[in-house]
Amino acid sequence: MNKPSILPSIQSPEDLRSLSLPQLERLATEMREVLCNLVSSRSAHFASNLGVVELCIALHQTFDFRHDRLIWDTGHQIYPHKLVTGRYPQFNSMRAKGGLMGYPNPEESEYDLFMTGHAGASVSTALGLASGDELLRDNDQRWSVAVIGDGAFPSGIVFEALNNVGRSSKRLLIVLNDNKMSICPRVGGMADYLDRLRMNRMYSGLKEEVVKVLGKVPLLGDPVERFLAQIKEAAKAGLHGGMLFEDLGLHYFGPIDGHNIGLLRKYLRMVRSVEGPVLLHVVTEKGHGFRPAAEDPVTFHAPPQFEQRVGDVVQMKKSSARAFTHAASAAIFDQMKSNPRVTVLTAAMCQGNNLERVREAFPDRFFDVGICEGHAVAFAAGQAKVGLRPIVDIYSTFLQRSFDQIFQEVALQNLPVTFMLDRGGLAGPDGPTHHGVFDLSYLRVFPHMVVMAPADENDLTQMLGLALQHAAPCAIRYPKAALPTIHAERKPVEFGKSEVLSWGEDGIVLCGGALLVECLKAADMLLKEGLHVGVVNARFIKPLDEETILRAVRECGFVATVEEGSLMGGFGSAILEVVSKAGLDTSHLRRLGIPDKFVEHGERGELLADLDLDANGIAAACRKLAAERAAGAQQPVVVANGVIH
Amino acid sequence: MNKPSILPSIQSPEDLRSLSLPQLERLATEMREVLCNLVSSRSAHFASNLGVVELCIALHQTFDFRHDRLIWDTGHQIYPHKLVTGRYPQFNSMRAKGGLMGYPNPEESEYDLFMTGHAGASVSTALGLASGDELLRDNDQRWSVAVIGDGAFPSGIVFEALNNVGRSSKRLLIVLNDNKMSICPRVGGMADYLDRLRMNRMYSGLKEEVVKVLGKVPLLGDPVERFLAQIKEAAKAGLHGGMLFEDLGLHYFGPIDGHNIGLLRKYLRMVRSVEGPVLLHVVTEKGHGFRPAAEDPVTFHAPPQFEQRVGDVVQMKKSSARAFTHAASAAIFDQMKSNPRVTVLTAAMCQGNNLERVREAFPDRFFDVGICEGHAVAFAAGQAKVGLRPIVDIYSTFLQRSFDQIFQEVALQNLPVTFMLDRGGLAGPDGPTHHGVFDLSYLRVFPHMVVMAPADENDLTQMLGLALQHAAPCAIRYPKAALPTIHAERKPVEFGKSEVLSWGEDGIVLCGGALLVECLKAADMLLKEGLHVGVVNARFIKPLDEETILRAVRECGFVATVEEGSLMGGFGSAILEVVSKAGLDTSHLRRLGIPDKFVEHGERGELLADLDLDANGIAAACRKLAAERAAGAQQPVVVANGVIH
Repeated sequence: MNKPSILPSIQSPEDLRSLSLPQLERLATEMREVLCNLVSSRSAHFASNLGVVELCIALHQTFDFRHDRLIWDTGHQIYPHKLVTGRYPQFNSMRAKGGLMGYPNPEESEYDLFMTGHAGASVSTALGLASGDELLRDNDQRWSVAVIGDGAFPSGIVFEALNNVGRSSKRLLIVLNDNKMSICPRVGGMADYLDRLRMNRMYSGLKEEVVKVLGKVPLLGDPVERFLAQIKEAAKAGLHGGMLFEDLGLHYFGPIDGHNIGLLRKYLRMVRSVEGPVLLHVVTEKGHGFRPAAEDPVTFHAPPQFEQRVGDVVQMKKSSARAFTHAASAAIFDQMKSNPRVTVLTAAMCQGNNLERVREAFPDRFFDVGICEGHAVAFAAGQAKVGLRPIVDIYSTFLQRSFDQIFQEVALQNLPVTFMLDRGGLAGPDGPTHHGVFDLSYLRVFPHMVVMAPADENDLTQMLGLALQHAAPCAIRYPKAALPTIHAERKPVEFGKSEVLSWGEDGIVLCGGALLVECLKAADMLLKEGLHVGVVNARFIKPLDEETILRAVRECGFVATVEEGSLMGGFGSAILEVVSKAGLDTSHLRRLGIPDKFVEHGERGELLADLDLDANGIAAACRKLAAERAAGAQQPVVVANGVIH
Repeated sequence: MNKPSILPSIQSPEDLRSLSLPQLERLATEMREVLCNLVSSRSAHFASNLGVVELCIALHQTFDFRHDRLIWDTGHQIYPHKLVTGRYPQFNSMRAKGGLMGYPNPEESEYDLFMTGHAGASVSTALGLASGDELLRDNDQRWSVAVIGDGAFPSGIVFEALNNVGRSSKRLLIVLNDNKMSICPRVGGMADYLDRLRMNRMYSGLKEEVVKVLGKVPLLGDPVERFLAQIKEAAKAGLHGGMLFEDLGLHYFGPIDGHNIGLLRKYLRMVRSVEGPVLLHVVTEKGHGFRPAAEDPVTFHAPPQFEQRVGDVVQMKKSSARAFTHAASAAIFDQMKSNPRVTVLTAAMCQGNNLERVREAFPDRFFDVGICEGHAVAFAAGQAKVGLRPIVDIYSTFLQRSFDQIFQEVALQNLPVTFMLDRGGLAGPDGPTHHGVFDLSYLRVFPHMVVMAPADENDLTQMLGLALQHAAPCAIRYPKAALPTIHAERKPVEFGKSEVLSWGEDGIVLCGGALLVECLKAADMLLKEGLHVGVVNARFIKPLDEETILRAVRECGFVATVEEGSLMGGFGSAILEVVSKAGLDTSHLRRLGIPDKFVEHGERGELLADLDLDANGIAAACRKLAAERAAGAQQPVVVANGVIH
């Protein structure tokens, strides 16, 4: 294919207005080519973006989103939107540090209203926008539009929003982008319902005719006629697709072909004439226009970089590195094999968590509940109550969505649910919506909860074994990262015990998780400089190994805590709590971790380096602490007013 | 009415089996009388319990819940269940410290499976129970039954569960207890839908007849006949009530009269013959059988103690004490009066948060979204985005349900949403599901978030004013408690600044919130003993007033932090973080707060005393710290290995 000719001329959505339908179709083709080229340079969200090209063009041609409001739910389908809102020139910086974010980003463009990444809130935020415009008497024909996929649609918050849609929402449009997929194949009653709606398309033509026939039934007062009238109403209702939505107070239109720009424009214009709220059901194909992606939308959801692409034949970059995710799924597999009471639950993260093999081997004990994390956790609690050993395998950032179920259904009942938090820490190119940096802080507040953080596969495997024997909820969190090799003699994982890899008279590093390998590297660097810094693999964030911690605080020149998590209330804070409770001095203790800000996107290694959480940063912090101690030791100890300075 | 004659003989639900229908009806009357008597001795949940008496009896008569599984969603309607499961003798200890809990409690009875209090998870847990029974091949006719009110029903997690109901749920029964009420009058599309279902009752009789008529339509091959066949299917569908539920894969039965034990039994037996999942729609009257409660179910949801009751005329105990809740609603009222951009959102806590006057005065800026906290927060974010200043007024414990929306929709976007967390701290007789003790820990992890805790009305009012001017999210948390009078000269609330009420050379107490009055009392007590202990009203949990904190740590003999919240990651931990970062010694600092366990129910004052968080407890801790310092000062300072012991 030649270089794009129309796309470079689209500096803003206004430029779409003057284009003819054939030109728009040509533009769609160009946009797809640009999407394919992007994935030739890096891993990125792909199939979902191919699926919404026409919808995006039609929306921007029909509405004016400098004025109207547009929210892309979940946000990984934002690429076409970025292409037509002035970001084509920077497009190849997508997901690179300092480049475009792979999700909507208000800092990039006035056309991106909310930074999204977690599914389902778009209907609520769009309702809020519409309500605000209404109250501010500022809604001279402003429309609020939420585009939400059928994968995100079963999220509870969507239903909460639909239930509240009736008020202040005259100009609210919900576009249901139905591609028959969540990230994994979608599941559930709503999915079946949408399937039935799609098959009902044949009704559309008949609808008017039937209504006409039924219109001839006379409406008089006697029982027989009331009976007939009831049949009439019933028939009308039954013929009308989307009754479920109509029952909740929305006007339902569709389903329509989401790859036909002309049809999309026609319907979008039409809904503008309706007093909302409107739900427009658009059927798209995930991966549309690129055969391999359309045929295998799971693999092509966010595929690895295309090393080679000739036409529609691609060769994807193979990652040789085995990651924590693989170790986790292997450990789950083994546990399920040996213990029939073990089940595994996920929330549309079957592929992301590498659980396909588990699903195939143990279909009756594998549960993908769709993007319904709250339900997943409460469901697991029910299973645990009757004696199963459920594993909830969900990304750290998405487990936030079940905070209240972790509280009430699991911790309060002290049920033995095991949480495996993948992508704990910095999730890399996905950025702030996906970083799992709050988990240690939010999980350890719950009584009964055990929180573990493995440093490598050895730890992870044993921790899962231990969790599945423990009579209380356990969480195991690990990063989206290649498995490190720890060159040291290892001790088996023991409940509540840390692993002392080396002791250091000059100072010691207490590491809560997978940065252990960086800590060891730092200690090696420092040793060459003559500084003896010990390294402890904490393993347990809760309960902490108080004995070892207090010994470190008493014996070592300085103590540095290291974690790939928020410094607000995290692992380091837990250590401060223990040390403070013991009445010991903490002035030679420092916490290294993620500061109180949202961290941008970029490769994990880049971000860790920026935050001084790689070996260099940890070593530098140790040097500084050692220097402070040396300076402090030379000063006389001053006792004044009973206080030791 | 005479003493109950049947109820005392019900030692377990088995005892119900031998009773005749008239006896059961008599039992229902006796149970209502016992409920009325209970409220004559103390405040308790009332109208919801009156409403489920017959349903409870019928369920226990039809199922055997030693074997079958029963979950009462939300749980405040658990009283009749407690009466028939062997807890009649202890019934008058309800909600008192050491007595029966006002919610299901597995420690009290094998018939209480889950300790509930937060709404909506029952369908998920029941599904989990059913799934577990199925997998364990242990489901020889075991049924899992969830009873959920129409108020809880719109919670997102219910929809998530319904969407997943299709699998492993052959013996799953969801009883929708439709009393037309949330705690406040219910709202939303689902409510309207249920209203329509109720009005559709007339269809039931006709249904069969219509199906018979339609059965005569021949089904042949030509288009006209296919057309007719479609009408037939459509008519069937339209005639069938509860299509919304059927669309999601449930069998719908009802609506039926929930006060007719005979009818309830008939239907419950009938659904047992159906391959589930089944939704049985039961219509009850909240407050049934006690006229004032039926007429005003909002006031009688959890009324104050009846001081006097003659027949159905009651006089309720009037509380003379103005509480934090009143101060909050007055402050909200004033802000809404002076600033047309201020809106207020709640989630079925209109009455609980004393917002009726606000709702009446500003109906267009008042939003009760029902028990949909996640939606409330995302909706507020949308409003804030377009320039409104929304206040989200939700109990601390229930705001946990929007953890992920606080993260993504508010904090990540840095939108100026103001959270007012009522019932922060120990919520008293409601117990562990309602204590709001994790809020300081879970809110301060989010970048941009400002967290304030007022000591009295003066603080609260000014904090709200400040929050509504601040360009970032703010949270204000306060307890379910009477407003204290602080006898001291006060300084105006200033962003990020604490208020030093007195400085103490012997020691100082840093208080994060409404326990200030206890701290001041403790300081007075200690002063009489010759100990000069200062008191600081922290006001800000985040950002902390670092200057004052560091000065306190440097100058004062000891430092005690005091908070009515979890010691895991809370206010005291935040202070440790600040002090540690500054490299100061913390060995003379101790944190007082809620330990790492779930706190039982009881009066707030009793619980605070138990946890040593009242004036006596705080004073005792100060004495101990002072004594430790005195002992420490007499010991020589030992410097060994560069470490100061």
